[in-house]
Amino acid sequence: MNEKELASPSRRQLLKGGAAMAVAGLGSTVALSANAACVSQDEAKFDEVVDIIVVGSGFAGMSAALQAKEAGASVMVIDKMPVFGGNSTINGGAMAVAGSPLQKKEGIEDSVDVMVADMLESGRGMNDVEMLKLVCNGTAESCEWLIDHGVEWKPFVQHFGGHSIPRVLQTVQSSGAGIIRPLIKAAKKSGIEMRNQAKLEGFIKDDSGRVIGIDVRQGYYFPKERTGKMVKVGARKGIIMATGGFGNDIEYRQMQQPEYTNQLDSTNHAGATSEALKQMMLLGANPIHLDQIQLGPWASPDEKGFGTASQFNTIATYPSGIVVDVRTGERFFNELADRKARADAIMTRRDAEGNPVYPIGFTNAEGAKDAQTLDWGLKYNVIKKADSLEELAKIYNMPAKALKDQVARWNESVTNGNDSEFGRPMQKAMLLDKGPWYGVRMWPKVHYCMGGVKVNTASEVLHLVTNKPIPGLYAAGEATGGIHGASRLGACAVAEGVVTGRNAGRHCAQSQSIKLNLA
Amino acid sequence: MNEKELASPSRRQLLKGGAAMAVAGLGSTVALSANAACVSQDEAKFDEVVDIIVVGSGFAGMSAALQAKEAGASVMVIDKMPVFGGNSTINGGAMAVAGSPLQKKEGIEDSVDVMVADMLESGRGMNDVEMLKLVCNGTAESCEWLIDHGVEWKPFVQHFGGHSIPRVLQTVQSSGAGIIRPLIKAAKKSGIEMRNQAKLEGFIKDDSGRVIGIDVRQGYYFPKERTGKMVKVGARKGIIMATGGFGNDIEYRQMQQPEYTNQLDSTNHAGATSEALKQMMLLGANPIHLDQIQLGPWASPDEKGFGTASQFNTIATYPSGIVVDVRTGERFFNELADRKARADAIMTRRDAEGNPVYPIGFTNAEGAKDAQTLDWGLKYNVIKKADSLEELAKIYNMPAKALKDQVARWNESVTNGNDSEFGRPMQKAMLLDKGPWYGVRMWPKVHYCMGGVKVNTASEVLHLVTNKPIPGLYAAGEATGGIHGASRLGACAVAEGVVTGRNAGRHCAQSQSIKLNLA
Repeated sequence: MNEKELASPSRRQLLKGGAAMAVAGLGSTVALSANAACVSQDEAKFDEVVDIIVVGSGFAGMSAALQAKEAGASVMVIDKMPVFGGNSTINGGAMAVAGSPLQKKEGIEDSVDVMVADMLESGRGMNDVEMLKLVCNGTAESCEWLIDHGVEWKPFVQHFGGHSIPRVLQTVQSSGAGIIRPLIKAAKKSGIEMRNQAKLEGFIKDDSGRVIGIDVRQGYYFPKERTGKMVKVGARKGIIMATGGFGNDIEYRQMQQPEYTNQLDSTNHAGATSEALKQMMLLGANPIHLDQIQLGPWASPDEKGFGTASQFNTIATYPSGIVVDVRTGERFFNELADRKARADAIMTRRDAEGNPVYPIGFTNAEGAKDAQTLDWGLKYNVIKKADSLEELAKIYNMPAKALKDQVARWNESVTNGNDSEFGRPMQKAMLLDKGPWYGVRMWPKVHYCMGGVKVNTASEVLHLVTNKPIPGLYAAGEATGGIHGASRLGACAVAEGVVTGRNAGRHCAQSQSIKLNLA
Repeated sequence: MNEKELASPSRRQLLKGGAAMAVAGLGSTVALSANAACVSQDEAKFDEVVDIIVVGSGFAGMSAALQAKEAGASVMVIDKMPVFGGNSTINGGAMAVAGSPLQKKEGIEDSVDVMVADMLESGRGMNDVEMLKLVCNGTAESCEWLIDHGVEWKPFVQHFGGHSIPRVLQTVQSSGAGIIRPLIKAAKKSGIEMRNQAKLEGFIKDDSGRVIGIDVRQGYYFPKERTGKMVKVGARKGIIMATGGFGNDIEYRQMQQPEYTNQLDSTNHAGATSEALKQMMLLGANPIHLDQIQLGPWASPDEKGFGTASQFNTIATYPSGIVVDVRTGERFFNELADRKARADAIMTRRDAEGNPVYPIGFTNAEGAKDAQTLDWGLKYNVIKKADSLEELAKIYNMPAKALKDQVARWNESVTNGNDSEFGRPMQKAMLLDKGPWYGVRMWPKVHYCMGGVKVNTASEVLHLVTNKPIPGLYAAGEATGGIHGASRLGACAVAEGVVTGRNAGRHCAQSQSIKLNLA
């Protein structure tokens, strides 16, 4: 090489990248520089090479890995945490399915179009409709696919907030672990390499701008950033990012929502942070709706995290009970509205100084019969039992007469099949005519990130400038943005994770393989 | 260099970048690769070199350029369009000022804290409070600074929607051109190099990750992307991005707000697109609130763009008139609410098929006396004149009696100084007791992007991963994100542009200069 080239190697890199990026359709200096520090495929040396690397082991990650393996690809799943599953193991394990056999059995008419319409309404019209249809279309078949992989559903459908009809299946364990455990078992049996405490540090690209591998910090101890040793893992077909949201990344979420401080608890596990999202953005991934961060309206201030109340309120209080303002004993919102509407309503209950005045949600023994977390909730004093409404009023310092009048009005609405007060859908509404009663104090917690990277219907991550796929990079589940718009409906994260995860696994496995070398 | 280095130049680049980035605090492969294709300062060769390059010539850009020049820096302003000023020349030229001499003269008590509180309420608490305070703090002094540079304000303050009190100054021309023209004149007089049809294509960085220049397409004819010739311009002190929003970038805005299709008009000039924002994001700039896109509630469907109605409604209809549903002749919202509340209210007026039912805003001759665009509006049939309320009702096919009853109720509210119907602040409310009347059909248009890149109080652009400044890169005005939260108040864009522009110019001019070479 001549003097000039030696003097300015980066110029050569720029030109080199330039030719390549022209193909990819990128045009600017930064676009070039962002893609110039790469190795040619035959120069690249890796410590390990597989067809597909899946980052994250939740609903999306495990579904992607299994689908890809079943399509014949060699797959490695990495998760930065010591345990697999992330948030997917600490939720109710509920999945919204459009047109399930159980709905037919119960005579409930449903369709993909109705589910899409429900999610669009909750999303305030901000949804990525193409991806939304892909998810709803895939629910019925994915629900069967999960059964084939050992998932057991309760024998009835439930009516979750924001859905116009009962549509929700739930694992017999009432937990996402009822999905994750069977999938992990199936993954290990099928020969998928499962690696925990393995953190993605960054991407490795070739000189065409294709992502061909990642730098992994192996033996990583969250959250100690410098632990573990770095290894380079190559991916012949692609990398599937199933890295979830950033609900527990307090610094980052506050940049978008300054009021979501450390004073607002989160239902997420400690590892729900933003590093993977940021690495994708540095690659040119297009971030959508990053400030749309969902608050779970069923949480309790009397425990940390997802806890026992979130599931109790989801299964018992909201569908089979009512929520009242502790000061008046009266309802103040539709308990089956979408999560944003419910959380916004609860957040308005404050005293003159703006401090929370926790509302009380309650139901009776009949309403609580399917709630597995009832005993734990009682044990930890998150759920309180009362034999009479008077006693319930006394426990929470509510006006007894007003409370009893409210319950009477509610029972009238149930009898009439019409909630004239707040327009709640009454298909599965239940009479509150006898105790014992179970009550919970309620306050929302940060639960889910609607925002993430933009993908196409092949689950390929799209570039900010070209709106074309970043070669070799796929994403699924909460890591993607736009499907849910301004507010995700309950039980639609499992649907999204499983359907888009399988979609990513299928497309990545079908993609062309490149040749990569070991060091 | 040896065989191995020759074989893998990018590795050397990575290591080279690596050392540098470690200093900058970045840690990942992409962070490295995004910063590896750079030239060392002494290797870099530029066609032109100045101290500071300002990209964009609106309120923020011109204020930054003048402030920097007055601080002793050599400055070049580039604008991709054939005319300077962008959106800043096509708006009402209104500036919210906390504690202006005119407020004192009219006996209106105001303070920075009150203005901050008003903007926080409109922003739904999503505002970057530090930057918000910086803006409000700077308004009074910047208003004087503008006077020193030849701007003439009307001799009274106005009450714009969402402000708790009258606080708005307006140029005698009722146009932002009344600010941009004097600033451009002062800039040229002071020796600032003003270059139009010059488009930023990308950034050039040195091997420490500092932005040291830009690639400029000179002689560019918007929107023909391949026109003009490429030149490299170096910046010894820094580059100030005053590139505005992307309100007229229909493809990009729809990625965040799918319903903001080409069916929804925009008040913005054709050049309000997203390329500059995307280039900053590829550098690692941290995007905030990209889906918070404001609709202007004062626009009319009977003309294109900002037009004559936007200013007429802002100055006349909203402060001195009322807005009614054409079907009922009745008011349906607080005409002095913030823009989001007003636009959301108007967007609810639809027929069974979801088609817009345009509401009618109107005032009388007294209310319209300060509206310079009245005659144009009448000429182009956007504003219609009626001698009586009966005639007004006839023109717009409204129920006459209901309309007259509404006007009677309104006048009662004015007399009582209390709008019992919608809680509108009544400080400057006016009796609608005699004609002639002037009416306008109303429907919102895309107006302003609250979102943009995150900056600190030195107007430095912060990196997504480190939250530290990207060396050499500054941003001001609409290009930044977070100051206004979910909804910007009227007349706060001029305030933001001038105050943050001057802030960026001051800090950039004070920054350390680096040595750059011409080709």
